[in-house]
Amino acid sequence: MAYELYYWPMLQGRGEFVRLALEDAGADYVDIARGPDADGRGLGALTRFLEDPSIARPAFAPPVLRDGDTLIGQTAAILLYLGPRLGLVGESEADRIWTHQIQLTIADVVAEAHDTHHPIAISLNYEDQKPEAARRARDFCRNRIPEFLAWFEHVLTRNDGRHLVGDRVTYADLSLFQLVDGLHYAFPNASAAALSDNPQVAALHAAIPRRPRLAAYLASPRRIPFNEQCIFRRYPELDG
Amino acid sequence: MAYELYYWPMLQGRGEFVRLALEDAGADYVDIARGPDADGRGLGALTRFLEDPSIARPAFAPPVLRDGDTLIGQTAAILLYLGPRLGLVGESEADRIWTHQIQLTIADVVAEAHDTHHPIAISLNYEDQKPEAARRARDFCRNRIPEFLAWFEHVLTRNDGRHLVGDRVTYADLSLFQLVDGLHYAFPNASAAALSDNPQVAALHAAIPRRPRLAAYLASPRRIPFNEQCIFRRYPELDG
Repeated sequence: MAYELYYWPMLQGRGEFVRLALEDAGADYVDIARGPDADGRGLGALTRFLEDPSIARPAFAPPVLRDGDTLIGQTAAILLYLGPRLGLVGESEADRIWTHQIQLTIADVVAEAHDTHHPIAISLNYEDQKPEAARRARDFCRNRIPEFLAWFEHVLTRNDGRHLVGDRVTYADLSLFQLVDGLHYAFPNASAAALSDNPQVAALHAAIPRRPRLAAYLASPRRIPFNEQCIFRRYPELDG
Repeated sequence: MAYELYYWPMLQGRGEFVRLALEDAGADYVDIARGPDADGRGLGALTRFLEDPSIARPAFAPPVLRDGDTLIGQTAAILLYLGPRLGLVGESEADRIWTHQIQLTIADVVAEAHDTHHPIAISLNYEDQKPEAARRARDFCRNRIPEFLAWFEHVLTRNDGRHLVGDRVTYADLSLFQLVDGLHYAFPNASAAALSDNPQVAALHAAIPRRPRLAAYLASPRRIPFNEQCIFRRYPELDG
């Protein structure tokens, strides 16, 4: 039975980390909110799902993955669950927990990237928190992007230089590609500087999209373009 | 062999979620940074560990747990690892991933609570971001604390009303106690209002510290008092 992904249809967001894993593995899945209403899909289906009082284990927020009777929320938990099923994580418990630890650190960067344009409240628009956003983004670009990318570079160096864990691609590598891609979109200047200091991270970011299934996905209409409704937003005034 | 916990010795912080699980289970563990230098412990031992270039799988930040040759960072990953070993999670994969999903949502609240006093940059002092902190804390108290506690109340209601998962205490229950305890310390007014709307969350917060091992721990000097170096800080101007 196909996996079902419940996520917003108009943006990459956190759902994209799940989409990349499913696409790279060639998994059978349905992106519920992106199908036609006539098939019981679309944004209405997502909204009904999120508000369904009969769900015993409701997620706080999307993305949510359905696998038969099992529902899983939280991006990193979804990847923890999918990793072994999709062949995107090592066999040993030590490799699996380390891969997950890296994913959780990626999630931390994603949250910080989001807060560059929403440092005060997600209930407010960017336009209502621009001075605070400018201050937060300055610190993120000058301190946090370099600190985090340096850590990923360390992790690569202490492994084989090409993979974060072991000797083949895991979901953490796919997620690091997506993180760097998002940073590159939102903060082209700050990211370019940090990537030149961390060449193995840059090389991973270049190599992952050459994987055949991912290349096909990224060139397809299934890949939603980056835009200013998402975590990674190109506001030039924040790239410093 | 005893578990080793590597975390800051002067604050509860994220390490406290790990301490609570270890203490509740009566596990044998060493809180490395809190022992005497003469025993190779203390803050110096923590610093040396964090900077050790020979560690193949370095964490981005503490807490880190050592179990023999295995090192694990990221609070939620540590609890994922410890849960089965300490008897603090159910047997089925579905229960384990749901418990972890709840833990990750608790981690999200913790990060947001931290950012009420550091909305701009962790590299700056609170005094350098007070106006922004006041704005962010207002939204956190008025919107986010109620939203998150209502979700935990839903989760309890849709289970048995007393446990988040299944019919016995998991590490997620211990962590929800700690989260509510921290919110209550930092935002006594906002938390009291939200707890009165979510009575099962309030009841869980009252019940968990009556567990015998936890009661002993909480009354001991091992429990570091809340303070203003931590995630949860009592700045009265932010409680609104």
